[in-house]
Formats: sequence, C-alpha cells, structure tokens
Amino acid sequence: MKQNKYDDPNFFSAYEQMPRSVKGLEGAGEWHILKELIPKLKDKNVLDLGCGFGWHCRYAREQQASSVIGVDISEKMLQKAREMTNDPLISYLKAPIEDIDFSKSQFDVVISSLAFHYIKSFKSICEKVYDCLKPGGIFVFSVEHPIFTSRNEQDWYYDEQGNRLHWPVDNYQIEGLRETSFLNENVTKYHRTISTYINDLIDTGFIIKAVKESVPSNEMLKSIPEMKDETRRPMFLMVSAEKENS
Amino acid sequence: MKQNKYDDPNFFSAYEQMPRSVKGLEGAGEWHILKELIPKLKDKNVLDLGCGFGWHCRYAREQQASSVIGVDISEKMLQKAREMTNDPLISYLKAPIEDIDFSKSQFDVVISSLAFHYIKSFKSICEKVYDCLKPGGIFVFSVEHPIFTSRNEQDWYYDEQGNRLHWPVDNYQIEGLRETSFLNENVTKYHRTISTYINDLIDTGFIIKAVKESVPSNEMLKSIPEMKDETRRPMFLMVSAEKENS
Repeated sequence: MKQNKYDDPNFFSAYEQMPRSVKGLEGAGEWHILKELIPKLKDKNVLDLGCGFGWHCRYAREQQASSVIGVDISEKMLQKAREMTNDPLISYLKAPIEDIDFSKSQFDVVISSLAFHYIKSFKSICEKVYDCLKPGGIFVFSVEHPIFTSRNEQDWYYDEQGNRLHWPVDNYQIEGLRETSFLNENVTKYHRTISTYINDLIDTGFIIKAVKESVPSNEMLKSIPEMKDETRRPMFLMVSAEKENS
Repeated sequence: MKQNKYDDPNFFSAYEQMPRSVKGLEGAGEWHILKELIPKLKDKNVLDLGCGFGWHCRYAREQQASSVIGVDISEKMLQKAREMTNDPLISYLKAPIEDIDFSKSQFDVVISSLAFHYIKSFKSICEKVYDCLKPGGIFVFSVEHPIFTSRNEQDWYYDEQGNRLHWPVDNYQIEGLRETSFLNENVTKYHRTISTYINDLIDTGFIIKAVKESVPSNEMLKSIPEMKDETRRPMFLMVSAEKENS
C-alpha cells in the first residue's frame, strides 16, 4: 500500500483549509518561482503527478495545453478536483505516482508539486518520467527542501519565550523515513539530500536546467509579515530538467 | 585588494598544522569524493585555482597530466608549494583567482578546492573558467556548503554541557559577506545558496555532471570517531560541470 494520508478525514479537512487549498496557486508561497520554471504550455500534453485539487492541471489548460492528465492517490483529492474542473481536456487518474505506466514519449511537460517527499524512491520516478516524456520534454517539480526535511521534528528551534532562534539541521546525510507532524497529524516523509535529487535526475539522463529554493515574493513579504522567516531557511526545492533531444 | 588571509603569519602557521596541510590530500576528509569527480588527467592541461600548497597540482602530474598551472593569491602558500614540488611541468602563478586571464580553450580540466567561498562573485569565475576551458572540458570544485556558511557563527548549536545539539541554519537566502572565525582568526567568507552555485554554472553554459555533499568515508568513520558528526550536516559542496562540446 502506497502512502495515502490525504484520504484520512481529519487530515483532509485540515488540508482543505490551507491557503493553497482555498486560494489555489496564488495562495502557494512558492508559486511565483515554480511558474517561472514551467515552459510554455500552449499545445502541449501535460502530466501532473500528485495533482491534488487540480490547480496545476487547470493552470495548464488556461495556458492552452492541448491535454492534461492529473494523477493522485487520494480519492478525496480527486473528487474535489473533479468538482472544481469543468474541462473535458483534463483527465484525473486515481493511482499512486509510483505506479504510473504511460506510453513512451506521451508528454511534453511533466509537473509535480510537493509530492515526491512522500515517495520512497525518487530514482524510479525519474525513470518513469523520463520514459513518458518526449525528447526535449521538460520535467518541473517542487519538493520539501532537504534542509527542511532533515530532522523528524521539521520545525524551528525556539528559545524559552517561543522565539524562533534558527532552523536546526541534523542527520542530513541519513536518507529515508522521517516521522513528522503536518496539520496536527502524523505524516511519513522521505528525506533525501539535494545531491540525490540532482544526481538521480542526471543519472537518468536529464539535463538540469535550473534549481531554485523558495523565497517569498516582495509582494508577499509586504502583505504577510510572517513571510520574512521564509528568508531564513528554504522550505521548498524546485528543479527543472530536460530530456535531451537526441 | 582581494582577500589574502593566508599571508597573515598567525593564520598561515595555524593552517600549516591542519591535517590537510601536513598529510595532503589523504588528510582532507572530502578527498575521496572530490577525486571521483576529477576526470582522467593523463595528457591533459590542468589549472588549479587557489592551489595552496600544490597538493592537487602534484596529484595531477602523478596522474600524468601534461602540464599544470597552480594559481594562488598568497606568496606564503606558493613558497611552500614550490618547496614541495620538484617538477618542471608544474608552474605556480601568484594572482587573485578573480584576475586570471588565460588564453581561450587553454585547459582540459580546471580544479578548485575550497577557494570560491572567499570570492565575491562566483558568476565571473564561471565565465573566466568557461572561457579558458576547451569544449568538452571539465570544471570540478569544492566549496564550503551553503548549509555550513549561512550564519556568521558557522558552528554547531550546543547545550549547556557543550554537546552538539544540531547545526543551525539562518539567513540562508541572504547572500553575501559572513564575518566568521577559522583557525582562531577573523575570516571573511561569502555565503551563497546552492541554487546560485548551480544556476550560475548553467547560465554560463556549463552542463552539471554531478553534485556531491561531503560525507566521511567508512575508513575515516572507523579511524576518526569525531567524523560521525560529519553525517549530521554537509560541510562541503562539490560540483562537476562540463563545457558543452559544440
């Protein structure tokens, strides 16, 4: 059984209330960066791995993608995605990301937002994505940053008054399971290093196009004062990689 | 005036006593990783930026490089390098790394070990290295890891008993000067993010071949017990990049 926390009713109802669930992409602090990494989608076949409520799928169609497939393991997520989508060129598929099995060279662009840190083997995802991408195709994804995921606690280090002293890193080189808490629920994540994310892509045959680490936009820094802490440690890692056109 | 801490007598005499200064490459905890990134050097023209005592220059000639140039800003370092070198095919050049001005496509391989975190603009180094590398040439370097350099303190966070609790990260996204201490002396370093290191290379035209984060070898873990802390946070970042053969 692959991990499917999002069908847990308590977790789902907390997730449903997050800004990124209510406001969509504009409520996601890293969207201004991820967006820049996504290539032109007009007339492209797009795959979204871990599509959740389908925000990126609908974005792709707004950008005139010719077709979009969104994959998610959670029936509850997909139910909501379907309710929010009125577009016959978007299909939603219920499946663990680990089990995708699309045709060779089916897609021009594969997107994934904040899903792979739930998945044990990143290398096998890379291979599957490589396989179903056309030559010259682009793979863009975000994950929780390895600086963020190194400890089980995945939290700031506080002083006695509750002030955030700094972000603690430990066990960075020890990849694998982290038993952590998210939205007041126990959640299992997989920590891997930055070098593993990058080398797994390269070893699969991808060319790294850009690596980004989330920083809030100036707009967000102005309108949401707590955002200033997001310059203290990167929360998300974003990568764009290309399947060589050979 | 470019930064030249290594001509300071106190600093130099402390540096001279470090294991990596006494034992050379085998005394450098990250050498087993960096070595793997260096391509075959037989019959290659090699440049070493920030060559210090010339360990990597001599290694290149042991690997039968056809010629090696070592560049360093410090007269004291080069004096020692010259004393330790008896090889007419190694030349040492006293210059700040920032000022190198070699012929186009002069080198097959450019190496740099733990020098660039002292230098303000990494992008301009990338451009100079790109220029003096042959097409298909390889650029391999190590720097202090951005997780290591984010805070001025660049030290563990301790409890009251002096135990190392974790490695604190702060101000990660704020690039630039860090006033820190190394070998009991004040030293100025430049912190930049992992993404800046990688994107500066890509934007210059390099293809990223591998990214590594220092972990001790099993041998070192066995023979030097304190090395186990080196799995808790990466101290060095190592990158191999290729100038495209076009």
